[in-house]
Amino acid sequence: MQLQAVLVAGQWRKAQAVDRFRAVDPQTGQPCGPEYPVSSWHDCDQALDAACEAFAQLRQTPGERIAQFLERYAERIEARAEQIVQAAHQETALPLRPRLAEVELPRTTGQLRQAAQAARDGSWRRPTIDTKLNIRSRLAPLGPVCVMGPNNFPLAFGSASGGDFAAAIAAGCPVIAKAHSSHPTTTRLFAEEAFQAVQEVGLPPATVQLLYRLRHQDGLRLVADPRLGATGYTGSRSSGLKLKAAADAAGKPIYLELSSINPVVLLPGALRERMQAIVQEFVTSCLLGCGQFCTNPGLVLLLAGEESEQFAQQVVQRFQQTSPGVLLSGGVLRNLDASVRRLREAGAELLTGGQQLPGPGFRYANTLLRVSAARFLEAPRDLQTEAFGNSSLLVVAADAEELCRVIDHLEGNLTGTIYASTQGDEETLYEQVAFHLRPRVGRLLCDKMPTGVAVTAAMNHGGPFPATGHPHFTAVGMPPALWRFTQLQCYDNVPQHRLPPELRDKNPPGRMWRWIDGRWTQEDVSSDSGA
Amino acid sequence: MQLQAVLVAGQWRKAQAVDRFRAVDPQTGQPCGPEYPVSSWHDCDQALDAACEAFAQLRQTPGERIAQFLERYAERIEARAEQIVQAAHQETALPLRPRLAEVELPRTTGQLRQAAQAARDGSWRRPTIDTKLNIRSRLAPLGPVCVMGPNNFPLAFGSASGGDFAAAIAAGCPVIAKAHSSHPTTTRLFAEEAFQAVQEVGLPPATVQLLYRLRHQDGLRLVADPRLGATGYTGSRSSGLKLKAAADAAGKPIYLELSSINPVVLLPGALRERMQAIVQEFVTSCLLGCGQFCTNPGLVLLLAGEESEQFAQQVVQRFQQTSPGVLLSGGVLRNLDASVRRLREAGAELLTGGQQLPGPGFRYANTLLRVSAARFLEAPRDLQTEAFGNSSLLVVAADAEELCRVIDHLEGNLTGTIYASTQGDEETLYEQVAFHLRPRVGRLLCDKMPTGVAVTAAMNHGGPFPATGHPHFTAVGMPPALWRFTQLQCYDNVPQHRLPPELRDKNPPGRMWRWIDGRWTQEDVSSDSGA
Repeated sequence: MQLQAVLVAGQWRKAQAVDRFRAVDPQTGQPCGPEYPVSSWHDCDQALDAACEAFAQLRQTPGERIAQFLERYAERIEARAEQIVQAAHQETALPLRPRLAEVELPRTTGQLRQAAQAARDGSWRRPTIDTKLNIRSRLAPLGPVCVMGPNNFPLAFGSASGGDFAAAIAAGCPVIAKAHSSHPTTTRLFAEEAFQAVQEVGLPPATVQLLYRLRHQDGLRLVADPRLGATGYTGSRSSGLKLKAAADAAGKPIYLELSSINPVVLLPGALRERMQAIVQEFVTSCLLGCGQFCTNPGLVLLLAGEESEQFAQQVVQRFQQTSPGVLLSGGVLRNLDASVRRLREAGAELLTGGQQLPGPGFRYANTLLRVSAARFLEAPRDLQTEAFGNSSLLVVAADAEELCRVIDHLEGNLTGTIYASTQGDEETLYEQVAFHLRPRVGRLLCDKMPTGVAVTAAMNHGGPFPATGHPHFTAVGMPPALWRFTQLQCYDNVPQHRLPPELRDKNPPGRMWRWIDGRWTQEDVSSDSGA
Repeated sequence: MQLQAVLVAGQWRKAQAVDRFRAVDPQTGQPCGPEYPVSSWHDCDQALDAACEAFAQLRQTPGERIAQFLERYAERIEARAEQIVQAAHQETALPLRPRLAEVELPRTTGQLRQAAQAARDGSWRRPTIDTKLNIRSRLAPLGPVCVMGPNNFPLAFGSASGGDFAAAIAAGCPVIAKAHSSHPTTTRLFAEEAFQAVQEVGLPPATVQLLYRLRHQDGLRLVADPRLGATGYTGSRSSGLKLKAAADAAGKPIYLELSSINPVVLLPGALRERMQAIVQEFVTSCLLGCGQFCTNPGLVLLLAGEESEQFAQQVVQRFQQTSPGVLLSGGVLRNLDASVRRLREAGAELLTGGQQLPGPGFRYANTLLRVSAARFLEAPRDLQTEAFGNSSLLVVAADAEELCRVIDHLEGNLTGTIYASTQGDEETLYEQVAFHLRPRVGRLLCDKMPTGVAVTAAMNHGGPFPATGHPHFTAVGMPPALWRFTQLQCYDNVPQHRLPPELRDKNPPGRMWRWIDGRWTQEDVSSDSGA
């Protein structure tokens, strides 16, 4: 079987392969689709050279042109939507409808269009002008960005289609996409459309490049290469930490989304008030996409009492009544099983589930575990093991103080959720819990499950380590997601005609927001100021 | 002799010392001032615990109170100015006047007052509101910050008085100051005034803490401690990289200012037009503070030709006519000598200087070296050795293309400077050079030497690695310098009364700037929006 081509330097070309692989259909456990190359360093090296050349051109490309590309790309995706979602369905077993076709695909194209708007508007550059001193600064693209997407969102976080891709391109950074090897065909279809759009709009040919898989040592070398600007990685903690160490040692920014168990605190007043609704919301959120969400509620904190017992019983029932979906891969299944074992060894009691299901597909029984807060506090590290998939752990605390101690032992998470009484009689308790939870999570939710990440400037899909690599940045939301791929550039005493357009006295067309002498404005620098 | 006390947990207390040290007067080479402790881990551990407690209180402290502290502290510094600058002069040999008393001290208090303004105003939090989705986010303090200041700015970058200190406090982070051990008394005097101001204003006692010196292993442990939020380090590259590795491995942000040789390109048209002025500006900038500036012009790029020869000759003359100042320490002297040797071994020719001067103080002859661009390109790494002190290296290129190749081989720098003809006849050459130089430096200057870092929001005192650890952030300029010590915090579906004041519909008093539904405004959320 002929190996699929990589996209390097504006050409679909034969890879210098060191190995080959195929995707696996999670519903059958059998290989599917064509054979793909594992690239040698040679392919990376060529891609890096080409990306540098593309970057030199992109630095001189107006945001309007980049916006046109992102919009054209979104249209092309829509025109080929059916084939893309079919491929993604075969490679990931995620439901075709509504998930892939009606939720994730529109989210993907919507994200590209929001990125287009950010590129066109240019306010993401945060132009800052001190007219008296004639010192001016703005954010500028950092250089070629390597995007390594995860297994669980083949479209919206895909290496050649997702949020990191859109943000990097919108900021003016060429992307070297490294497909997740569980869905190479999905990623290839995206890259085909992206490359067509690149050509239609006339961007530099190597603005988008695609490799399918690398040896570990080449991945480590890639993220540390002097030619690279930064890396956006979403995936497993163990691989992510290795990549982080390599990039850090070279002083290369790497933005990571690694692991998160997303604590959900259910206060007794909330359970008393609306038990059925909360059980329903929790079960839906926890089993959505077979639990394979970065914001999946993997840890539920409860106060000892009748309400919490009822909650546990009802969730067990619902977990048992709900037929589990197919997991993304054999690896996910093995890791889930290993994590559940580790939780049990650390003292968690199995309430339901806890074993692989028979049949050809990768399926695992919906799993609920339980542990006391006292026990949790004896082994907080082990009991925070992320069980990625359709599993969650209940932690039952004797009182509010113990609950807060558990929270104080949590690692950084993407989200933290509190359900409380809506009658105003639980505010003191809410405040106490929120005070402890707030610094440990990127997004704090009230009375709403965490598995839904709206694409808005106000979103934070980020959080303290190890949820992500840097707590200042978000991976979702335009324009903030762009900031990860920027460097701050200052101009000191530089004459008008040598300044980039966004720093000249005259505001470029489009009324960009600029911070001039201590205030945000869309106006020109007024003629009576010092500059 | 009794050891000086450390400031831990709101008390000047006896250190648990593992060793002792004294400052050295650089003018005599003799120890001066009292004995100071090298702290054990026990002191760090106590300081970390106390800082966590202070942080919990600071999280609930209004910006107005923090602003009052910063302003009161600035006043107290002014009241004790003479003693502070005398101590700094003895410990660093930097000139009392104008440098310490008339330049650095006012800059220090000015910086504290700018930080106060940022804390009071609150716009640094970048509140972002999506009224339709009721998703809101803002920047929040990251936690206790360890500040390790450098030797060369005992006041304006001092661990308990400088830019990192001011930025961390203004953002609401308690500071554990680790004094530079070359000027412990200066740092202690600052901490005394800071602590008095803390008490007067009623901030948590451990808002400011002070240790003087740590064993290396304890420094590495400190920056990686789970209780710490982040570290701000300014100093040597070798120590900085070790600290960075330790902090990175623990996922703790560390902001570094490490090394920078600040390339200055002198185009022939500029030299033809105003040779005398440029020689004067360069010599002043290069020998200012004995060359011990992070933005010292350590590398001058020239095109081969008569003008460049004249420039070199005249600088040699001026270097020989100018009496060298006293260096900060014996270590600086030894490193400078070793760096000059390394440059010579790599092929640089010595035009003048190159040796230690006789006498008791730490003095080195003003040093100018020269190398061809061709030779530079054979050993670009060695020939970028930072010779911290009164030394600079001229690189002479055969043509513009070779000049740009040299630039392409430069590591990240804080600044890059281009002098060009002001007659408009060198614009093409300017553009070519600027295109290559721009991505390699944090601040690009025209016709102005880089030593001078104005404290303005438009400043970038930062740059690509290894100039700093992250190219997105600046260490100077309010409010941007605060952003290093923040985490992004999102609130999703959180009712008004549970939101922090800056995210409620009503804009807090003071007309904070907020990004609401895609525009910057100081208004309240309008009553007809969705929230």
